[in-house]
Amino acid sequence: MKIQPITSSTNAVLKKIKGLHHRNLREKQALFLVEGPKCVEEAFQHGVAITDVVVSQTYLQESSAAVQSKLTAVSVVEDKLFKELTTTSTPAGIIAVAKMLPQAGEKVLSRGNPLVLVAHGIQDPGNLGTMIRTALAASATAIVLTKGTVDPYNPKVVRSAMGALFALPMFWDLSFCDAVSLLKRHSLRVVACDAKSSLSYFQSDLSKPTAVIVGNEGHGFDQNDLKQVDEIVSIPMDEKSESLNAAISAAIVLFQAVQQRS
Amino acid sequence: MKIQPITSSTNAVLKKIKGLHHRNLREKQALFLVEGPKCVEEAFQHGVAITDVVVSQTYLQESSAAVQSKLTAVSVVEDKLFKELTTTSTPAGIIAVAKMLPQAGEKVLSRGNPLVLVAHGIQDPGNLGTMIRTALAASATAIVLTKGTVDPYNPKVVRSAMGALFALPMFWDLSFCDAVSLLKRHSLRVVACDAKSSLSYFQSDLSKPTAVIVGNEGHGFDQNDLKQVDEIVSIPMDEKSESLNAAISAAIVLFQAVQQRS
Repeated sequence: MKIQPITSSTNAVLKKIKGLHHRNLREKQALFLVEGPKCVEEAFQHGVAITDVVVSQTYLQESSAAVQSKLTAVSVVEDKLFKELTTTSTPAGIIAVAKMLPQAGEKVLSRGNPLVLVAHGIQDPGNLGTMIRTALAASATAIVLTKGTVDPYNPKVVRSAMGALFALPMFWDLSFCDAVSLLKRHSLRVVACDAKSSLSYFQSDLSKPTAVIVGNEGHGFDQNDLKQVDEIVSIPMDEKSESLNAAISAAIVLFQAVQQRS
Repeated sequence: MKIQPITSSTNAVLKKIKGLHHRNLREKQALFLVEGPKCVEEAFQHGVAITDVVVSQTYLQESSAAVQSKLTAVSVVEDKLFKELTTTSTPAGIIAVAKMLPQAGEKVLSRGNPLVLVAHGIQDPGNLGTMIRTALAASATAIVLTKGTVDPYNPKVVRSAMGALFALPMFWDLSFCDAVSLLKRHSLRVVACDAKSSLSYFQSDLSKPTAVIVGNEGHGFDQNDLKQVDEIVSIPMDEKSESLNAAISAAIVLFQAVQQRS
């Protein structure tokens, strides 16, 4: 492994990493950040193309052999300088620059008995990351992100998805209408989760090809959007309760599908 | 409504609030912080005893009438000073000091067909808050926190519980053994969620009085703990997936109980 010390905060690699904290620069370069040993290892395992790896001096001394063995070259910076690179308050000592994955191909929707999660306008990066992680656990075929959903390459999404981002086929930047068209073209039943529906999710047949749509944390769905779906289901809740977290709603309905298919 | 301007950062109320960022001072005074208009309103609605309310100057000018109408007295500070009081990076302009609620009484476990969530060593405050919110939505009777679980009055727990903290009866600071004894004394079937079990959660009968235990995010359960429970269930996951978030696991099993009871 080649070790390249970097001492100046104006170094090009460090500048590139700091730029990737911002969505516009991520999109312009089609690059994103992967932070922490676990997540970097997952990226390697899934064959994500890594262009740069920077570690802190402390990490280099104490790091896990697993990640180090996969690195051909690594830049090392002082711990203080490393803190400027990370987006977490408790930096784990390793950060990688990775190439964005391509959008999923439509053909994944034609295989087997597809189960797709649609994140419609989800705003909280932790929620979206958890939804990606949960969808993979539920053996979902893919996740679809409509326009207005938080950037899936936001560092907090990458972190909370815990490697699932690299494994789950993803479609993004589709209008609601285009997302529904895509799913219907492949004969998926499109089911939206909306608290106002009187049909419980467990009364819905989720055993056939299905897409489950979870809406924005605050305002849910527009009426026009709901007109395009095949069914609207709700999760029955205690009257003292106002709402469920979006990632929790997604999990409850996806795992109902798993149960019905088992 | 009486409005009391505070201009000095050494004012006693401000010092008290800053102290309540720390667990030891919260416990010593049996007080905690409630932040943001929605959460403060929920606290009022649930009859939580509020000792002080501080708002920022901007909030006072623009605030929702709903909260203001319930305030008899409020202290106002400059926006800059307010930032020192809050624990969020995007302060919502209102913070209240509230008295901790008493532990739940055992008799809640004797009513109806109890469903209890046990958070065993949960470390992440966002996870615990989401678990409290989800348990209330699933009409849980109570939540039990074992020793070593994050402080339920941690500001991030309070925030992510979104008012459910004030509505859901709670037992805390019990050893695992004492928690199981409490639940069995009231004839609840004690079910632990552990990924290594070969019994799926939906094959378990959760329709009778049941307690669902979710373990620590990293290491789950000790073998000795598992010997004390009545049943161990798992959530079947895709082989590409390593684990589910603790709050997600809790939600999937609790809502399975809701479904079986409906």
